[in-house]
Amino acid sequence: MARILALHTHDVRFPTSQTLDGSDAMNPDPDYSASYVRVLTDADDGLSGHGFVFTIGRGNDVQVAALRALESHLVGRDVDATLDDLGGVWRELVHDSQLRWLGPEKGVMHMAVGAVINALWDLRAKREGKPLWQVLAAMSPEQLVDLVDFRYLTDALTREEALELLRAAEPGRARRQRSLLAEGYPAYTTTPGWLGYDDEKLARLCREAVADGFTQIKLKVGADLDDDLRRLRIARDTCGPGIRIAVDANQRWDVDEAVRWVTELKPFDLAWIEEPTSPDDVLAHAAIARAVAPVPVASGEHIANRVVFKQFLQADALSVLQLDATRVAGVNENIAILLLAAKFGVPVCPHAGGVGLCEAVQHLAMFDYVAVSGSTQGRMIEFVDHLHEHFLSPVVVRDGRYRAPTTPGAGTEMYAASLREYAHD
Amino acid sequence: MARILALHTHDVRFPTSQTLDGSDAMNPDPDYSASYVRVLTDADDGLSGHGFVFTIGRGNDVQVAALRALESHLVGRDVDATLDDLGGVWRELVHDSQLRWLGPEKGVMHMAVGAVINALWDLRAKREGKPLWQVLAAMSPEQLVDLVDFRYLTDALTREEALELLRAAEPGRARRQRSLLAEGYPAYTTTPGWLGYDDEKLARLCREAVADGFTQIKLKVGADLDDDLRRLRIARDTCGPGIRIAVDANQRWDVDEAVRWVTELKPFDLAWIEEPTSPDDVLAHAAIARAVAPVPVASGEHIANRVVFKQFLQADALSVLQLDATRVAGVNENIAILLLAAKFGVPVCPHAGGVGLCEAVQHLAMFDYVAVSGSTQGRMIEFVDHLHEHFLSPVVVRDGRYRAPTTPGAGTEMYAASLREYAHD
Repeated sequence: MARILALHTHDVRFPTSQTLDGSDAMNPDPDYSASYVRVLTDADDGLSGHGFVFTIGRGNDVQVAALRALESHLVGRDVDATLDDLGGVWRELVHDSQLRWLGPEKGVMHMAVGAVINALWDLRAKREGKPLWQVLAAMSPEQLVDLVDFRYLTDALTREEALELLRAAEPGRARRQRSLLAEGYPAYTTTPGWLGYDDEKLARLCREAVADGFTQIKLKVGADLDDDLRRLRIARDTCGPGIRIAVDANQRWDVDEAVRWVTELKPFDLAWIEEPTSPDDVLAHAAIARAVAPVPVASGEHIANRVVFKQFLQADALSVLQLDATRVAGVNENIAILLLAAKFGVPVCPHAGGVGLCEAVQHLAMFDYVAVSGSTQGRMIEFVDHLHEHFLSPVVVRDGRYRAPTTPGAGTEMYAASLREYAHD
Repeated sequence: MARILALHTHDVRFPTSQTLDGSDAMNPDPDYSASYVRVLTDADDGLSGHGFVFTIGRGNDVQVAALRALESHLVGRDVDATLDDLGGVWRELVHDSQLRWLGPEKGVMHMAVGAVINALWDLRAKREGKPLWQVLAAMSPEQLVDLVDFRYLTDALTREEALELLRAAEPGRARRQRSLLAEGYPAYTTTPGWLGYDDEKLARLCREAVADGFTQIKLKVGADLDDDLRRLRIARDTCGPGIRIAVDANQRWDVDEAVRWVTELKPFDLAWIEEPTSPDDVLAHAAIARAVAPVPVASGEHIANRVVFKQFLQADALSVLQLDATRVAGVNENIAILLLAAKFGVPVCPHAGGVGLCEAVQHLAMFDYVAVSGSTQGRMIEFVDHLHEHFLSPVVVRDGRYRAPTTPGAGTEMYAASLREYAHD
């Protein structure tokens, strides 16, 4: 019987602040980083499970300490039994009665659980010889709801309702899987839009985005209104009216300021306004959404857990849901969030970029298409062309679409050489 | 010129799980712990500032790692300039653009900021030779609002509105300060009510609470309805009708279950129902509050920050606000929360117990009485008689009231011997 031997952790940081890649109104100089964990076993197959929390530099060591705090929960466990009951493992880690105090279910400790859970899914998918999205898409509705903790969700979504949603999507699974393998999944690009880029670079990257087949780009806004108006004009003029342009304020505003600012930007035909204010503020997002309609409000990369997502949906506070692969407690919690979005009929456009977020989150969007929402209507995955070269199975984005990954695993494994080269002391 | 030399940290854990002190429906076996920080300077006065995050055991090391991540922000600073601008220091720590990603403003990283901020207030109060509540109560309305970050609050409370509230409370400050020194501040006790205690111990502790002058006790509920009914009957019979009995579910329920359960307990004349569900769930608390009225809903010990408190108030989701000294980012954020509560006319009954929470939070309640709300009506501080002996200035609770502390500082300093004896390896 194979057992889990250890969690090995790595503090990996890339010096991205040197080029202002990733610069926005709240994050002027991020150093894209990963608190990285490998789950090692004594199985003959030699396989290991890889997961990480994406951070932007300082504090990556705190996040690694949180990963280490979970090791005692895993070491010594039977590998098969663990991977067969990831719903149970999730509950055990999230509801550890002492660790829970540090959240509950939010921030450093919750994200650490997410990385470990994702690493276990990576291991499971590798052992099954399939990419994660296909592992999930092959599970029965009953198996899928067993992965989800419905605690705190039942006023919006019960286990029975989730089962019904999943059963309703069963008939088309095979067809949609074939279509994904043939055509991929829509993407949009944020590459042109970082605040630290000058106007010339912005225009050039807009032209390249259109030439590369993207039908939506995203611009960072919120530092200076005149700059935003000028940059939006450049983008709109360069891309033409057929390209969707979303804007992202990265939590910069209060309610009144958000409404005033977005109203000024409205003439540029915004695809959505992302993170206008605090990601904790359901009621403020709802107020902003009412005031700036019909501009859709988007949020999610900093929404702490499924309970907060539930409220955003209940309050009509977002109409584009941007789940993130490493902000919540991993694959299981993201399945809950996909089910909530399906229940409320809200499209999911995952947050990506950073380090490895594209590689990880594509599996969730593709699983959603095959087995949950059954649709790509109004849905697309963010794409930023940074740091993919450090991953064994980097995303392939062609003609504005993510190609469906076929390598076994969750896409989360980095090269050992990258872990070494960018190790932080 | 004196400078900050270092932050020294300690991982301190008390083996409280051995006696089931602190046992409730979600926390069956807490080991009360402190992630403790000392701010050291090279000033001639030899004073140091002490602060901590209260945790319940596992993960206290993660919390200490977060304290360590803040050291570089403090070391080398001019002590006087730092202590004169704690509003500015708060903003710098909370909005560090890289550390912020780990919350934002929630969980491990946010609580670490709170401990450091509280340690700086402890140092400032010691240097002024006054207890913290008197330091705060001596500040002008303008100085007080400068301590508060109004970002994300302005849809409910602006700086100008906060100034008006504080100015309106100025006339009675001296009188209320005298009354505090003479009569203290109301307390209630949770000592009888832990789930792990048997019926005989419950009845004995109820009798002792009444004999000790308390007019309110609190019982843990939510694990088993029949047990709750039996225990409430014992408490009500023992205490008589004149004593207020609050109940605390420690986040155990979903909405429907909370409503059903509280409806069963209503005949015992509940002072409030505390934490019926997830502390992130504003909308669920609001739904529960409507359904169980007139039983008041209380929450706060796990509410992550002022933005979530703001929404609880906006949505009528609580009518008793239980701020905590170490959950949010310290004194400054708690001043924001006191101002929000005053704006909405909701009484503040601080959470305490644990390790040192009574010692720390009494200063906030007393400051509120002197300079913000101006009232003790419907207000009282939780009291639990655990672990006070480890503090240099333990709380004094007599005749059911906290006596106003007069020792210089924030009450947060533990004996060096306790830090050593209960140091976790």
